[in-house]
Amino acid sequence: MGELALIEAIRGALGRREGSRVVRGLGDDCAVVRTDGAGAAVQSVDVMVDGTHFRLDRASPADVGWRALAGALSDVAAMGAEAGEAYLAVVVPDRFGEAAVVELHAGAEALAAACGVTLAGGDLARGPALTVAVTVTGWAASPGEVVGRDGARPGDRVGVTGGLGASAAGLLALDRGAAGHETLVARHLRPRPQLAAGRALARAGASAMIDLSDGLATDARHVAAASGVRLVVDAGRLPVAAGVAEAAAALGEDPMRLVVAGGEDYELLACVPAAGVEAAAAAGLRWIGAVEDGPAGLELVGAGSAAAGWRGHEHAW
Amino acid sequence: MGELALIEAIRGALGRREGSRVVRGLGDDCAVVRTDGAGAAVQSVDVMVDGTHFRLDRASPADVGWRALAGALSDVAAMGAEAGEAYLAVVVPDRFGEAAVVELHAGAEALAAACGVTLAGGDLARGPALTVAVTVTGWAASPGEVVGRDGARPGDRVGVTGGLGASAAGLLALDRGAAGHETLVARHLRPRPQLAAGRALARAGASAMIDLSDGLATDARHVAAASGVRLVVDAGRLPVAAGVAEAAAALGEDPMRLVVAGGEDYELLACVPAAGVEAAAAAGLRWIGAVEDGPAGLELVGAGSAAAGWRGHEHAW
Repeated sequence: MGELALIEAIRGALGRREGSRVVRGLGDDCAVVRTDGAGAAVQSVDVMVDGTHFRLDRASPADVGWRALAGALSDVAAMGAEAGEAYLAVVVPDRFGEAAVVELHAGAEALAAACGVTLAGGDLARGPALTVAVTVTGWAASPGEVVGRDGARPGDRVGVTGGLGASAAGLLALDRGAAGHETLVARHLRPRPQLAAGRALARAGASAMIDLSDGLATDARHVAAASGVRLVVDAGRLPVAAGVAEAAAALGEDPMRLVVAGGEDYELLACVPAAGVEAAAAAGLRWIGAVEDGPAGLELVGAGSAAAGWRGHEHAW
Repeated sequence: MGELALIEAIRGALGRREGSRVVRGLGDDCAVVRTDGAGAAVQSVDVMVDGTHFRLDRASPADVGWRALAGALSDVAAMGAEAGEAYLAVVVPDRFGEAAVVELHAGAEALAAACGVTLAGGDLARGPALTVAVTVTGWAASPGEVVGRDGARPGDRVGVTGGLGASAAGLLALDRGAAGHETLVARHLRPRPQLAAGRALARAGASAMIDLSDGLATDARHVAAASGVRLVVDAGRLPVAAGVAEAAAALGEDPMRLVVAGGEDYELLACVPAAGVEAAAAAGLRWIGAVEDGPAGLELVGAGSAAAGWRGHEHAW
């Protein structure tokens, strides 16, 4: 069973409740839940494990806290909601000292402060590997203001909020032990969730949105599948983050692989109907393609044949 | 540094945000957050790790899912809120097969269905030990309806919702490999959060409430410390769960240690002002003591000297 099949099997084991507040459940960046007023809460949980999602020999405890929170807040950004609170459940191995536990929380707090988010609770436990599970709550004035993955329609334009490939290039430099790539390494260890852009794109009328956590190729396919449309993306128009081309040359890597398949840039991909194109561009969106009729999927044009097969990783449900 | 000192150090690293929705942050069973209307959301996160909080050789995957969700829902019960949604982040070791992953989620779903709770999202990751982080959201009509730990006042009566010691007795039977204690073992592996009682006690005007996760002695001290009062509890009036005395005798254990220090019964302890005593009793509360002036703490009367020192474990913040 592959990971997506496993997630499908889990979904199959879950039921829906009469009178539930849940407007959107599984299958988007966040769940969307009605509040008592007209409003909506959005919620997401992300878990990161030492050795799988980060390596403590290459990231400081503060980096780990920042990065885990950034990944979760990016899901709130992708819904176009206002980030509110976060909760950290941390499993600590014996070799990870108490000062490091505090530093990890201080790293998360530094990003929380920058985003106006309150760390409102958490839990600590002992276990064999450092594990950080982050829950985030965001808020919207109504469920209808929240942007899912499933609203893309033929005729929409497709854009991304910033340069791509920086995180993957930084990770590659870390993996190779290559010096001189500090800016890219920082983009990997301390990503910035695009909360302001997400809210602006929601106001601009974005029809579908996702954060680029698994890599553009994989995440664009998620939008295509959820919306039942074809996303045609021009590889030649993908914005390459500053320094990525140079780092790729220095490290002997194809820069397009970093841009197309490199995950964890935590930029946003948005689909925007004609009426919102101007406002979306003002919010920082750069156009990379269009939504078309046809079998659901991603068509990457202007790229080598290898690019069509590039995929990132995927595991949230 | 002890665990409480570590939690204090973490709190010291966290800031408060201007305009935050957080009404109650760290230090209670759940955080309490204002929604856009007049309402409130309560949230808690609990993490359980194989080898620390459960043992896979003694609990089925379905038990693990049920029990992790029960522990988190019990925190919602202790606030007197209505349970709404839950989110499971699960770290899976290679030896834990995909069928077991689905079974774990089905175990959580069985309890969710019994409680009217929707499992609205989650995350999966690979790691060395099975780890289940559960986030729960509850709802209340207003922040003022939510019951914290800090409202106990001299003159209140103190009660608990049900018999104590069953979970600890069941765990002891599991540890000893002793047969014939299936009902107590089930109380340990499949505890029931007291959601209906919690809401009824909130309506009855309970001034303070906590769930008995760490053991009566420890949890009563938490209420005393948060409220700045003395809780005087009569050990002779503590309700002993059915079968605990017999199991203790068979296993050579002091039954009072199971009742006073045994954790994870997930019953509720509530403090109730005179006006609410009748309604609280109707909700199932049994009186075990009173709140008095004096140095904050627990005074356990009518128990042997050993009982005064009994403590469970504690780790949430």
